[in-house]
Amino acid sequence: MPSLSLAQINPTVGDLSANCDKIVAFARDAAARGADLVVFPELCVCGYPPLDLLESPRFIDAVEAALADLALRLPPDVGVIVGAPIRNPNPIGKRLFNAALLFEGGRVAAEVRKRLLPTYDVFDEYRYFEPGATSTALSFRGLRIGLHVCEDMWNNEEQADHHLYEANPIDLLAAEHIDVFVNISASPFAVGKHERRNKIVSEICREHGIPFVLVNTVGANTEIIFDGDSRVHAADGSLIVCAPSFEEHLLFWDSGDTATRCSMPHRDVVDLHDALVLGIRDYFEKTGAFDKALVGLSGGIDSAVTCALAVTALGADRVTGITMPSRYSSPGSVDDSAALAANLGIEFHNIPVGPAVDSFASMLSDVFANTEPGVAEENIQSRTRGLTLMAVSNKFRYLLLTTGNKSEMSVGYATLYGDMNGGLAVLSDVYKTDIYTLAGYINERDGANVIPRSTIDKPPSAELRPGQLDSDSLPDYDTLDRILRLYIEGHREYDDIVRMTGFDAELVIRILDLVDQNEYKRRQAAPGLRVSTKAFGMGRRVPIVMNWQRADAIQRLETRT
Amino acid sequence: MPSLSLAQINPTVGDLSANCDKIVAFARDAAARGADLVVFPELCVCGYPPLDLLESPRFIDAVEAALADLALRLPPDVGVIVGAPIRNPNPIGKRLFNAALLFEGGRVAAEVRKRLLPTYDVFDEYRYFEPGATSTALSFRGLRIGLHVCEDMWNNEEQADHHLYEANPIDLLAAEHIDVFVNISASPFAVGKHERRNKIVSEICREHGIPFVLVNTVGANTEIIFDGDSRVHAADGSLIVCAPSFEEHLLFWDSGDTATRCSMPHRDVVDLHDALVLGIRDYFEKTGAFDKALVGLSGGIDSAVTCALAVTALGADRVTGITMPSRYSSPGSVDDSAALAANLGIEFHNIPVGPAVDSFASMLSDVFANTEPGVAEENIQSRTRGLTLMAVSNKFRYLLLTTGNKSEMSVGYATLYGDMNGGLAVLSDVYKTDIYTLAGYINERDGANVIPRSTIDKPPSAELRPGQLDSDSLPDYDTLDRILRLYIEGHREYDDIVRMTGFDAELVIRILDLVDQNEYKRRQAAPGLRVSTKAFGMGRRVPIVMNWQRADAIQRLETRT
Repeated sequence: MPSLSLAQINPTVGDLSANCDKIVAFARDAAARGADLVVFPELCVCGYPPLDLLESPRFIDAVEAALADLALRLPPDVGVIVGAPIRNPNPIGKRLFNAALLFEGGRVAAEVRKRLLPTYDVFDEYRYFEPGATSTALSFRGLRIGLHVCEDMWNNEEQADHHLYEANPIDLLAAEHIDVFVNISASPFAVGKHERRNKIVSEICREHGIPFVLVNTVGANTEIIFDGDSRVHAADGSLIVCAPSFEEHLLFWDSGDTATRCSMPHRDVVDLHDALVLGIRDYFEKTGAFDKALVGLSGGIDSAVTCALAVTALGADRVTGITMPSRYSSPGSVDDSAALAANLGIEFHNIPVGPAVDSFASMLSDVFANTEPGVAEENIQSRTRGLTLMAVSNKFRYLLLTTGNKSEMSVGYATLYGDMNGGLAVLSDVYKTDIYTLAGYINERDGANVIPRSTIDKPPSAELRPGQLDSDSLPDYDTLDRILRLYIEGHREYDDIVRMTGFDAELVIRILDLVDQNEYKRRQAAPGLRVSTKAFGMGRRVPIVMNWQRADAIQRLETRT
Repeated sequence: MPSLSLAQINPTVGDLSANCDKIVAFARDAAARGADLVVFPELCVCGYPPLDLLESPRFIDAVEAALADLALRLPPDVGVIVGAPIRNPNPIGKRLFNAALLFEGGRVAAEVRKRLLPTYDVFDEYRYFEPGATSTALSFRGLRIGLHVCEDMWNNEEQADHHLYEANPIDLLAAEHIDVFVNISASPFAVGKHERRNKIVSEICREHGIPFVLVNTVGANTEIIFDGDSRVHAADGSLIVCAPSFEEHLLFWDSGDTATRCSMPHRDVVDLHDALVLGIRDYFEKTGAFDKALVGLSGGIDSAVTCALAVTALGADRVTGITMPSRYSSPGSVDDSAALAANLGIEFHNIPVGPAVDSFASMLSDVFANTEPGVAEENIQSRTRGLTLMAVSNKFRYLLLTTGNKSEMSVGYATLYGDMNGGLAVLSDVYKTDIYTLAGYINERDGANVIPRSTIDKPPSAELRPGQLDSDSLPDYDTLDRILRLYIEGHREYDDIVRMTGFDAELVIRILDLVDQNEYKRRQAAPGLRVSTKAFGMGRRVPIVMNWQRADAIQRLETRT
């Protein structure tokens, strides 16, 4: 029986030449190690998501040229499956297909078109691609393969309460008397995704009594993180082999082999940690635009966790921390920041922002005459810090990492052009309560209190006025995060949330309205690493100018029924 | 023959209750004035684009309740066509249809589902909607109507070099022996759209010998501006009646009447002006979050035009201008700003930013020791201005309008968290060369040099270092804008642009690479008013982290051929 190799690679969007070099190198390595068929991920030639690059005819010309080169450069004595956009020869419909191509003997021996095109959340595939119309098996050296692309495997009865698609490629391929399913994917990470994949793949295997090979891409491209997590399941659903998550890997499987020898338990907090580290590293490395990363250290837990993740991603010598106390900062804000920087072994500066804050106060004294200090003044403090960090970023080519968490970003507890400044928002998809878990894991992992105890223990505060605490303006984070999770990831409206939690209806309405009203801030936020099933950014498209009167409308609905 | 009324209304996204009140008021008015059938625009019940509000089942419940109320409240003796999202009863496919509903006698008498779902540029309809499967005529008091929704009329051979869709609803409806086409639209404005509509509608009329009623929505929702431009064409394609653009209007047409009596020539600069005014006004009024608009005045043409547009949109008493000179500002920057403010009759402040700039210089002196002044210092100036404007915005609930133009935003000639600050980018879809035309029209329109001559005549400069001119870093704007138009609106790659313009290939590559590399800035830009066929923002989705090596790839292509 042919021996398969699963090439879990990390392509860069648009970099056809580097991606093809990588494909050739992995294919040669796999061939040298005995593989008959080497399988690469979805759209690995152009990287995922290529977005509107796909609308450029010249970009597609270049993809075609890259594929022609691949045919010549790939080892001719093995089969190689790659994912790439190809032109739709029909003059009607979208101009491209999302295809899996089998190279063999210096030519494309087979082509499979993706049928189910995800067009929801972060996915816009129907913007670019025409759906494929058929599902047929292909034969490779006596092996009948049910080759398909990513979403084609997700139209499964057990998983969905509603079928998005008419076609079920899995059932159609199973009916073709295949020996194995082969799925090439660009399937993004979210906490818990490993278990979801286990469940759906093993169900497919058991239902049809057919083994399953899944090759997923790895790496981060701007906000989307791919975990890899490639694997082979036996016909009974059990895991035969699996690749480590969050790194490139070449995995081998002899297609006659059914001995289960993979046990890779996943812990949510470890996956979350490793995803964020990869997200930082790939943003930094793939842009190639920066010499170091920069984090503003407040003494609080968000900036401490961000900084620790950056050090793991880039090394201590490529991370700089700056603390910027004002008159409202607690002594702990400087001490805890200094302790963190010392623990991590990073460059550290202390730049008090008082002089700039005072300058603005005097510059604005006429215009602000006879007004009470309030949010405007608090924001000035936050913005002098943001400006200071950007000055250092611009001067030394440092990537400023934003530290805001998902709880704050949800309700707008953040200052535009202040603490929201930065090129990448590391924690903007992580709720505050989960950041404590992450901090605990970081200290556990490094075997020491890298993140100072006092940082973890202090009550959260923006420290923008005397004695300020987050709990002055917001419910406690356990309450807030529970409401937010039900609204954002759970897609529940306020009445359901009240029923499910027993929380006060006015509180729930206020929080949901705050989320909606602060869309204008998030629209200008740095791209954030997506680690949940519903992150802010490209996957959550909410109007800024709108007036959805949820309380009125829903109360009226309840009166009707 | 029944008399029709075209109700060109301005709904607010999500505000079901206000939108339905407006529909009822217009329908009653039309009925009182003799209409038999009143036609409203696409999705007028929920506003366009509702985006992910459509994913909330409770929002759809509320739409259903609003439609049930409409049935009771609409005048029972006339027919009323409205656009609304309705549930897909089939458990397979997207959960909604984008529908046109005919109300008559207190109930929904007919329902038409949109078939062609635009999923390109700013449109994401396949994210939410299942395409309708059929095109059939409906009868209303002896009139056979070919009712359809927006995109269903745009699959026309003369217009497209490539057919996006299999179905052609126009041909199918024409075959149903109809007396009139009725199209309900949410068709956005772009400069020249009026003429494009004239062309496509009159071609349809002539091809089939059938008159055409088009009812388009009006108003701006965040970045998208709808111009209205509703009209009736005779069977020979000539315009019978047409509504004024950029305002609500109730238009009447007796379906037996073929007398051409509409002549509404459109001038591009006037449309552009009126679109921007509407965009500012609707953002301001529909959010309801602001007391005034605020513009930072540099003495340059962009801020002057932005400010003049704001005064036309909101009135002089709701606009404030602030000039913020630094040591590198020319004397003209303050004098021209003061003259503009006086001409417009607005509140005006002069807040020199020197003290804040000096504070940052001293705060950063240790960290910046032994470095040369450069972009970091220039950005500090821009950011102290941005911070000052935001302080005033926060203190007094002023909407800060950003003044950057499309040429600058394209190549990143703008400072994040500095001059890019603001809630709405008024000119970010207008090239610099067009801003001069706009300034000329504003002065022509107001019969006086509202925008000072010296503002129009001075060479463009950011004034961030001594003697700085835009032309130090960029080609002249005629050259730059020509390249940008071909790349952004024209979707041309550098080799085509070089062939078409004769410009130096290195220059063209440098400009196109600058556009791509500055996506990270635009991702954090304020939403901008869309007035072209390709604006930055939601309609142009480009990866931040990518490495498309256009020069290498395209040169390699040319070697091949």
